[in-house]
Order: sequence, then C-alpha cells, then structure tokens
Amino acid sequence: MDRLKVGILGATGLVGQVFAYFLDRHPWFEVTYVGASKASAGKRYLDAIHYKLVSISDEVGELIVQEVKPDKVPKDLKIVFSALPSGVAKDIELELVRRGFTVISNAAPMRLDDEVPLINPEVNWDHLKLLEVQRRKGWRGTLVKNPNCTTAILTLSLKPIADMYGIRKVIVTSMQSVSGAGFPGVSSLQIIDNIIPFIEKEEEKMQTETLKIMGKLKDEKVKWASFKVSATCTRVPTLEGHMISVFVETEREVNMSELIKAMENFKSKPQELKLPTAPERPIVVRKEKDRPQTRLDRWIERGMSVVVGRLREETALDRGVKYVALGHNLARGAAGIAVVIAELMYKLGYMEA
Amino acid sequence: MDRLKVGILGATGLVGQVFAYFLDRHPWFEVTYVGASKASAGKRYLDAIHYKLVSISDEVGELIVQEVKPDKVPKDLKIVFSALPSGVAKDIELELVRRGFTVISNAAPMRLDDEVPLINPEVNWDHLKLLEVQRRKGWRGTLVKNPNCTTAILTLSLKPIADMYGIRKVIVTSMQSVSGAGFPGVSSLQIIDNIIPFIEKEEEKMQTETLKIMGKLKDEKVKWASFKVSATCTRVPTLEGHMISVFVETEREVNMSELIKAMENFKSKPQELKLPTAPERPIVVRKEKDRPQTRLDRWIERGMSVVVGRLREETALDRGVKYVALGHNLARGAAGIAVVIAELMYKLGYMEA
Amino acid sequence: MDRLKVGILGATGLVGQVFAYFLDRHPWFEVTYVGASKASAGKRYLDAIHYKLVSISDEVGELIVQEVKPDKVPKDLKIVFSALPSGVAKDIELELVRRGFTVISNAAPMRLDDEVPLINPEVNWDHLKLLEVQRRKGWRGTLVKNPNCTTAILTLSLKPIADMYGIRKVIVTSMQSVSGAGFPGVSSLQIIDNIIPFIEKEEEKMQTETLKIMGKLKDEKVKWASFKVSATCTRVPTLEGHMISVFVETEREVNMSELIKAMENFKSKPQELKLPTAPERPIVVRKEKDRPQTRLDRWIERGMSVVVGRLREETALDRGVKYVALGHNLARGAAGIAVVIAELMYKLGYMEA
Amino acid sequence: MDRLKVGILGATGLVGQVFAYFLDRHPWFEVTYVGASKASAGKRYLDAIHYKLVSISDEVGELIVQEVKPDKVPKDLKIVFSALPSGVAKDIELELVRRGFTVISNAAPMRLDDEVPLINPEVNWDHLKLLEVQRRKGWRGTLVKNPNCTTAILTLSLKPIADMYGIRKVIVTSMQSVSGAGFPGVSSLQIIDNIIPFIEKEEEKMQTETLKIMGKLKDEKVKWASFKVSATCTRVPTLEGHMISVFVETEREVNMSELIKAMENFKSKPQELKLPTAPERPIVVRKEKDRPQTRLDRWIERGMSVVVGRLREETALDRGVKYVALGHNLARGAAGIAVVIAELMYKLGYMEA
Repeated sequence: MDRLKVGILGATGLVGQVFAYFLDRHPWFEVTYVGASKASAGKRYLDAIHYKLVSISDEVGELIVQEVKPDKVPKDLKIVFSALPSGVAKDIELELVRRGFTVISNAAPMRLDDEVPLINPEVNWDHLKLLEVQRRKGWRGTLVKNPNCTTAILTLSLKPIADMYGIRKVIVTSMQSVSGAGFPGVSSLQIIDNIIPFIEKEEEKMQTETLKIMGKLKDEKVKWASFKVSATCTRVPTLEGHMISVFVETEREVNMSELIKAMENFKSKPQELKLPTAPERPIVVRKEKDRPQTRLDRWIERGMSVVVGRLREETALDRGVKYVALGHNLARGAAGIAVVIAELMYKLGYMEA
Repeated sequence: MDRLKVGILGATGLVGQVFAYFLDRHPWFEVTYVGASKASAGKRYLDAIHYKLVSISDEVGELIVQEVKPDKVPKDLKIVFSALPSGVAKDIELELVRRGFTVISNAAPMRLDDEVPLINPEVNWDHLKLLEVQRRKGWRGTLVKNPNCTTAILTLSLKPIADMYGIRKVIVTSMQSVSGAGFPGVSSLQIIDNIIPFIEKEEEKMQTETLKIMGKLKDEKVKWASFKVSATCTRVPTLEGHMISVFVETEREVNMSELIKAMENFKSKPQELKLPTAPERPIVVRKEKDRPQTRLDRWIERGMSVVVGRLREETALDRGVKYVALGHNLARGAAGIAVVIAELMYKLGYMEA
Repeated sequence: MDRLKVGILGATGLVGQVFAYFLDRHPWFEVTYVGASKASAGKRYLDAIHYKLVSISDEVGELIVQEVKPDKVPKDLKIVFSALPSGVAKDIELELVRRGFTVISNAAPMRLDDEVPLINPEVNWDHLKLLEVQRRKGWRGTLVKNPNCTTAILTLSLKPIADMYGIRKVIVTSMQSVSGAGFPGVSSLQIIDNIIPFIEKEEEKMQTETLKIMGKLKDEKVKWASFKVSATCTRVPTLEGHMISVFVETEREVNMSELIKAMENFKSKPQELKLPTAPERPIVVRKEKDRPQTRLDRWIERGMSVVVGRLREETALDRGVKYVALGHNLARGAAGIAVVIAELMYKLGYMEA
Repeated sequence: MDRLKVGILGATGLVGQVFAYFLDRHPWFEVTYVGASKASAGKRYLDAIHYKLVSISDEVGELIVQEVKPDKVPKDLKIVFSALPSGVAKDIELELVRRGFTVISNAAPMRLDDEVPLINPEVNWDHLKLLEVQRRKGWRGTLVKNPNCTTAILTLSLKPIADMYGIRKVIVTSMQSVSGAGFPGVSSLQIIDNIIPFIEKEEEKMQTETLKIMGKLKDEKVKWASFKVSATCTRVPTLEGHMISVFVETEREVNMSELIKAMENFKSKPQELKLPTAPERPIVVRKEKDRPQTRLDRWIERGMSVVVGRLREETALDRGVKYVALGHNLARGAAGIAVVIAELMYKLGYMEA
C-alpha cells in the first residue's frame, strides 16, 4: 500500500520535530514536505534544527526545508500538520483550508471556534463529527485542532472521573517544563534555581479548552461542559514533561479503588482501532507514594500516556479526588495527539473528502 | 543592658544555622550555647557546619559545640531554641521544660497539643496566652512551637483574607526547595531536571496546623478554625524558598483592590512593638504579572516577608481569590519566626517566669 | 547453548545497576546472583534499588537480593562482577579469588598491583596475559580490574594518539557528573548552580592508572608508560556523563586530518571479535564546533563510545593536540567495560580455568 | 566636592547593570546618562532592564534611558563607560573618542590595538601610559579597554607567579557561567544537565589578551609576554562566576608556601591608592581542599577578588604549579575593573585632558 503524503508546517521547532519523530517511518503516512521560515529554507531538515530533542531518521531528516507559502504547498499532500507559531498560524491555515487541504493543527488560534473540532483523541474523538458541519458549510478543506499541552494532559486524566462521578469543579496548578516555551524559549538565567509562576495565556486556555473538549456533541454542536476550572500555571526548571496538581469536586461520591481500576483499564477509540501512535495505556497509574516524577516518567509509551499518581480523596471540596498527573508536553501535549487525530480520521473515513 | 543568654539545639543543621544568623549580634539575646550531636561536639561552631547557607560572625561562630544532653544544658539560659530532628526532639524538649527552661521549638512533635501555643507571630501572637495554662498546670518551664515551614507561609498570606472575608476552603499546591529537607537531604540525582510530588507528612501538617494557627483563643483553649484545607506538596529543583499556589473560597465576596491594599498595609503586634527580627512589611504584594519568583524574591526583608503575587478572583470555587505566595522556608518558615516569638515573649512579659 | 552463570556484587548501587543493564538477556551470560548489603537482602532486585537509572527487565529484576558473604556465593558462578564499595571490596574479592572465583571488579583497591590486569578493553586487552602470572603464582581464582571512570574515558581517547605520535605529557581537567559519586552521593544543596573543584582520590587515580593501562606488557610484567599526567577533577551539575578537556604533548608532529581519520576508524580486539557489549565505534569524532555535549552525547552506542570533539593543534606545549572527550561514567567508565572484559576472556579462552 | 559626570552605554544589559551597581552612589563619579538601544529609550532605567541581576538604587535607577547616538551624548560627561555589544561598539566608541570623550570600554574590538591600553588594574596599571601615545598622535579623546572576563580572572591569578618564578606555558580550561553570554543568552534547553565545550572567540581572546596584559611597557609600546597560552572554554550550568583550571610551567622552581604567601599578600596600585572599587585582597587563597566553589565564592569582596584554591605542584610540565581560580565574570571580569580603571585614571591625573 502506498502511504499518504503528508507535510509538516513549522517543522524545525520543537513541536515540529516531535511531529517528525512520530511520522518518521509511519505505516500509513509519509512525510514529503517540511515547511519552515525563510531562514531555514533550502537546508537539509536535520541541519535546520537548532536544538535536537528526539532522534529522527533519514526518511524525514534528508528532506529539504521549504519556506511556508500556502500557494506553494504541494497539492498532493493528504494531510498538513501545523506547528506554526500562533502569530502566523491563522492566516496560513485558513488559506490552506480554502485551497482544499486537510489541516491538523497544534496552533492556538481558532481552537474555540464552533465549527472546529478540538480533539484529545481518547477523550472526545466523536467531536470529529463537526467536520460534517465544515463540509456542509462548503469548506473546501478541513481544519482540526489539538488542545494546549497542559489541557491535553488534564482532560485525559479527568475523563474517567467525569464518566463515573460527574465533575463540578477543577482546581489545577501546573509545573511546566521549559520545552513548553519552544527554543530558545526560556533563558537559563531566568529559570535555574527558580520558578516563574506565570505563562502567557496558559491559564485561559486550560479554563476554556477543557470545557469544550469535555463537552457533548449535540445537533452538530459542542455543548461545552458546565463545570468550573480554575488554573495557576508555573514554569519550573525541568526540560520536558508537564506536571499538574489537580483537585476535583465530583457530583457523586468517589470510590477510590473503583476509580483507580477504571483509570488503569481506561481505553477509548484509538486503542480499539489499534492506532499506531496511540498508547496501549492512555492512563498509567503509579501507586508508589512519590510518583509520577517528571524526569522518570515523561517518556512512558513514547510520551503518549498520562501518568497519574498520588490519588487521594479530596478533603476541602464537597466531595471528590485529588491527584498529580504528568504528561509529555510535546507528545501527549502536542504533536503526538495530532498524529493520532490523523490516524483516527484515516480509519474513520474522514480522509476521502 | 545585659543581653539574655540563649542557646540553640541542633545548631549545626540548616535551621540551626539560620537561628545563629538571626541571633548573631541580636540586641536582646546573646547565644552562649550551641548544641548538636556527638559528632560535632568539641568543634568550633563554624567548623562543625557541613553546608554553610548564611554568613555568621565570630560572636556565634567561635563558640564550641556541645553535645545536647538535657542535664548539661547551662542553667543560665533564658531561652533554648530547638532545631532538633523530629525523632529526638520530644524527649529532650520535655525534659528541658521539666527542668524549668523556656523552649521555643521548630520541631514537629507536640505542635498540635492543646497546651502548646503554635505561633506564627503576625497571625496568632495572642495564642501565647496558652502559656498561662502551662503555668497553671504546674509546668516548671515553657514550651512554644513555630509551625511547619509551608504552613507559616500559607497562614500569613491567609490572615488578611480571613479577617476581611472569612475563609471556607483552601486548596494549595506547594513547590518546595531542597533546603527544606535539610543537609544532605535531597540527592542531586533525584532532583536535577525533576519534580518529586511528595514530601513525607507535609500535607498533613498543612491541613492541621493551619487550622490551629487560624483558630480563636477562647477560655484558654484554641478553638480550631473550621474551614477546610487540602494540600499537595512537591519538591522542585530550587535551593531556598517555598512557593505555594493557593485557591481560597471565602464566605463573602472579595473586593480585589481592597484586599490588595489590606495585604500591603497588613501589620500586627510584631510590627507595633518594632521587634528587631520582625519584617517591616509582613506581606509584600508584587503587581508584576510574573512575580513572586523563588530566586529573586526569597530573601526580601531577610526572608521574613511573604511575597504575594498573581492575585486574581477565584473562578471555580463559589467565591474567593487565588494567588501565589513565596516565603523563605528557613526564615519565615522556621528559625526567623521562632526568634520573633522569643522577642514577643520578652516584650510581652512572658520571660520573667 | 547454556549461558554461563554470573553474579553481581554491590548490585543495587549505580554501577551495579548498569551491570544488570548490560547483563540482562546477555547472549553468553546469565545473571543468577545479585548480592548487596544486609539492608537489601531478601528483597526483589527491582524493589531494592533506590534510584533507578536504567531499565532492567524481569530476567534480572525478579531475582532476590542476597547478602554478600564470600562463603555463601554460589559455586556455580563462572564470573563474579564486583561493584563493591572501596572500603569492603578488597577483603571480599581476595576471599572469592581464594575460593576459586573469576572476579572482574570495578572497585579501586589493587588496581595498581603487579599481578592484576587493569583493563580498558580497546586499549590494553593484551594485558590479560597477566592472568597467566596469577595462575603460575598458584592463585586458585582470577582477579581483573577495570579502571576508574575518568581514566577509562581518557585512555581510550589517548590510544590512537599514542600509537601514531607518541605521548610525552597529558594535562587534563575533568567535569564529572553527580552519578559518579553514587547514590545518594552529592547533595542537591551542594551542586545546583555550583561547581566543586575536588573529587577525593580522583586525580591520583588518573595520574597512575593511565600509565599502567598505557604501559607495555613485557616478560609478564606491565612496564608503565613513561609520559606524565597532570589532572584536576571537578564535579559539575550534570546527571550522567563525564567530560574531559585534554591537552597532549606528543613526541612527533601531529597531522590533524590523519589523526581524525585514525580516531574515526579506530577498532581493536573487541570490535574484531564482535563482542556483544563492545561499541561498533569505540571513538566517535564530532566535527560540529560545539560537541560533544554531556546530555546529548552520553548514551551514544549504549554509553560505550568515547565521543571526541574540538580537536585542535596544541599551542602551548611543544607539539601535540588538544580536545574534549565525553564518556558515560557508568558504561564506558565502569560496568560496561567490565562486561566487555568478561566477553574478551570468554572468547580468548581465559574462562576454562 | 562635585562628582564627575559619567555615562553608561549599553546600560540595560548585564554588564551595563553591573556598571550601574558599582557607580551607584560612587564617591567620585555620578551617573547622569544611561544609553541603550532604541527599544529601551524613554523608559525609566529600572523598568528597561529585562533580567535584574544586582540591586540598584534610585540614583541610577530613576534615570531615563537614552538611545545611544554619538552626537547626542552629553558633552559634560567626563567618562563614558561602554558595555556595547561587539557588533556596534567600534564605530560608536571611535566616534566618541573623535568627539573628545574618555571612553573606558568592555567591548572586544580594538583590545589588541597598539595604542589602546588593555588594563586589568592590579596587573598592568602602568600600561595606562599608552594614553600619552594617544595624545601625541593627536587623538582628541581617550580609549581604554578592560579585558575579556576569563582573561581578567586568569591574568590576576598569574601575576604573582610571573613576578616570582617567570612563566613559560599556561594551559587553561574554563567552566563559565551562563551570565557570561548576556541575556537572554543561553537557552535553558541547552544548558540544564549539560556542558557545552565551546564559546565563540573566547579561547582566542584568552590566548592573545593574556600576553598583551602580561607584557612590558617599553618605549611607549607594549612588548607582549612571550610565554604560551592554550585554552579550552566551556559553558556550564551555573548562573554567575567563571571557574578556571590552570596549569603553569614556570621558568624557575616554585616554592609552594612562598607562593601562597605571596598570593595572599598580593597588593598593587589600586590597593595602595585605596581606590573605592578595588578589593582589599585582589587574590583570596582558600586552603580547604574543595574550594573555590562557584556559588559560594563568586561575590567575595563584591565580586572583585579572584579566589584561588587547590594550589599544587605541577606534575606533567617541566616545573610549575596548578590551581583552580574563580572570579565574578561581570565584576572582576567586566564592569568592576572598568570602574577601577576610571578610578586609577582619576587618581593618577589622566582625567585633566
């Protein structure tokens, strides 16, 4: 079988690299286009990367970087993965959709738009049905978004809780690694022996995207979840992996051993369909008293699992549970799930269009 | 005026050193005794310290370390400051009280005992009245405790909120520096590029001590506060200073600008009495969007202030406020406030006994 | 074919773990014994490890740890790998030799003894002939040592230079990671944002062991190399991997491009024999101006290669070359080469004894 | 007495800030001009600083930043301190000299020019006589340079050795902190848990500037020292302070106790003249086996001392000494010595011009 041709926009950044990592020798997709800014154009992909985070083979590594211009993106690409910076993403992505491309994007703009599915695969794969709205509205192409990194980690960990006990309130503090800010990103002078308790726009994203993702699809619209989220986001001196400390008020009493079992056994459509990039265990529950730990647990299942630990009954909220969760911000939190979204679309028949 | 003779138990550890730092050339107190384990006995104090955190002059530095034995502690000490390890603190401290000493202790045991005042000076200095209970019960000496480090930071930041709006619920996640674990404490292999989301017994301490400190004294008993506290404590790769992310549900609506003003202007007995070790501004409010930061703010006012920032309305709890606070774990969180307690006792006439 | 039974002493420490990592599912050897101190005895091996550095499968992981007592070491072990602490290594190892065991040891004592081969496999595998001296002297068992970690990295990088141009002087400054001090080893308080320019006995080891390893075997004795070595060793805040900055005065003029080619193509007996744990490229030459880098290069070829970069003509010494080299202190610097020594002995027929 | 008006170019960078730190409330100089790039122009100085390294009072902090344009620099400035980036320094500094200003510059260009004194005050203050050459050649203004940061630390430590025993060869490896690269400088992704063994142009600077500084002034020319220097420079994860590992071949045998005494007692013109910014002890000798340490020793005497430790006889070179030295890269290594140069010029009568 011939693999589908796919492209990566913003290929040389950290998220772009992790796209390359997951798409390298992919069974269904073949990267034939890597686009970046003018500065990188004309270089061999591996030479154009400033800070190399993951290993990438020659299949992608030997491609020549192209300057991203919507009218120069090859027509034969079946999927365009976008890791473009927020500032330029919207215009380019919309132009590509107008030109008929299927765009799966990690960029923040338009994540909350009604017609745009915002997908964390194991949590709300069914929201892909919104694509039918896009078609009916006459879009020539297709646009799907994956959520903000921390939101992806949070919502996956919340999913079994929501299903079993209902959620009323979520209070979350994040401890995010420096790779979340891209490269060069956070200066070493700012973060060695330090914590910065602020990340631009991050809390707003967690407080809104979570509700859209956890919402229900009804009459071709996503009815946002009605619980409340309150977030404080901090930057800490770790390289990769975002940790979150979560306190949840549930609608019904939580049975801790039942919940732990449910988390351990949690599977969803991507696991059912045995998608190549989906983790076997979307949620890994650690029972040691001091796990998850950022450095030790971030690359479990190629960074696609969320590792949950310290599950305890919540003591200040009316009822519920508190825990710590860890996920790789660039895999589960960005490129990895965008690739799973593509695999879902492929398997569910959204690719024919 | 002759200064009162005081001693430090557990003098060579990190908390012990910060005792020495605050008591060095103190206007009212003179350190004449430094006690530690047998291994350090007989050495010059400055030579007995393994990891030097603060600068200490010859006044204390040249003293010869004594092995801590209750029956060898000099009778002329008016105050004994204890930075003893939890495992041995209780027996030694009780024996010293039996022998008539005034003991002000940073060690965890007995903090929750009914007759023992647990004091964070600016928050509940009036709880010192419990000392009358000790006298009436025929204690020959006196025992006062300062709280756990993170609890000290939390309760000071909560005080103006409690006073103005009443508190119902407190949800807190801590990001604690390695000096909180003493020396050698946390191995570099464990914490470089890592977060450990667990600190033995820390959450229990925050969840109980906070309520005792914020309680009301009535009929010579402390009636614990009735709000609820839920905590998750983590260790992060910073050297000194504990940061906490706090979400508070209040009884009444919070007026943010009023609260900020109240925090900035907050003073208490230690400021009124102009105690030498009390900070001028117990709470420093930072208005920059990305402060407090651990490395930049931890030594403000010799580590005795709590630096509060990112004050925002709470969005998931019924009403309230969320913020980030930072304090130096060894100053505001341990030795510093024990010294302020001594100063309070001296000024308020508790020393005559 | 049945695999030879082997054991690991000091199995729970960092070096012990890396022994387990290399011996796990080894084609020729099977770990059937893991020995450690009394505190770990009786535990499942994976549960007895305090700080887990590498992944270890069930084959070794499920073994039950035994307390190390020479008279209880199973007689059927064909090789005993020792990662014992220096303080206890000598007595136990000698007793095991007396009892007829083949001991391959990473521990420092006896490395300089005349009858004991000190082997860095690609550099001086031929020194294994000293084992014949051991036999002739009536030793019932066999004792081989691998060098100090930094010395192993240095001597492998020096080997092609010595062969081609002769060496007169070596000046070296090391920047060693915290894992070199074992666990818990270096306190985080000591090393975050710091450098400690001293490592106990390390410089002496580099200055002596280097000369023995680079010496010539003649008349069943090692005639130590006669060049001079001067070392300063420092501890830096990296987790794994030791970097060295090396300045070499050679006997003859160095032709840089010839040397680079020789380093890149350098092979020795372990490569010839295709030993399972030997790296394909013992020396990897990086030509980028800013490599090797500790974090990026330390695990190349499972940590068994030495990565050399910044090769330049030496400008202060009479003639020669300067460069930077990096090696994994626990693989190339300890357990990894001990396993290659065992493989060499197996293939060269030293195991029949 | 009125203080002389002085200005700082490149005032908002790290070196610029440390200029402000040393000139703030200076007894002889008053900062009346702070110049920076267009982006900062018009802002209050303290608001224009991105990363605040040192505390600066209102005297300098409240000044309004001006865009640096040679024709707009106020004529009444008696000294212009330059912390301009290398790329723009030369043109601006030369234009200022043409306009008659006295420029004392930390920027690299022209450091090796014959007519330009390159001064590390305690080492070669007498080279200031080159200013007479500038005058005779008809320069309207004056240009003096301070050396590269690492060179300043090295040459001060070498001075007593050169004086007593003569120097033949110097082999040096540096371990430099991230503040040496300015702000934002080194990305946290590059340096956490890592070492980068390369700093652009740093080795060339050490290998040339050292010889000019240690040269002898003769017939109004500096005859460069004739010994040889070989350097490898690395970047390590420390915030401030550069450590160097130095191996020196001397002309005559070194008497270690004599050398230690000479280093401890070393004084030079700046100490004789009691210049306000000169350290009392230019060289601090630490006798503990594990000092100097970067974090613990970098701010000794406001960062103006070089801390030397681990003094040992050299073992590979023909004769000599090896040691470790530490200095603050922004104080002794940059702004601090530029201010001492100004103080020297003031006291020695070079300011009348």
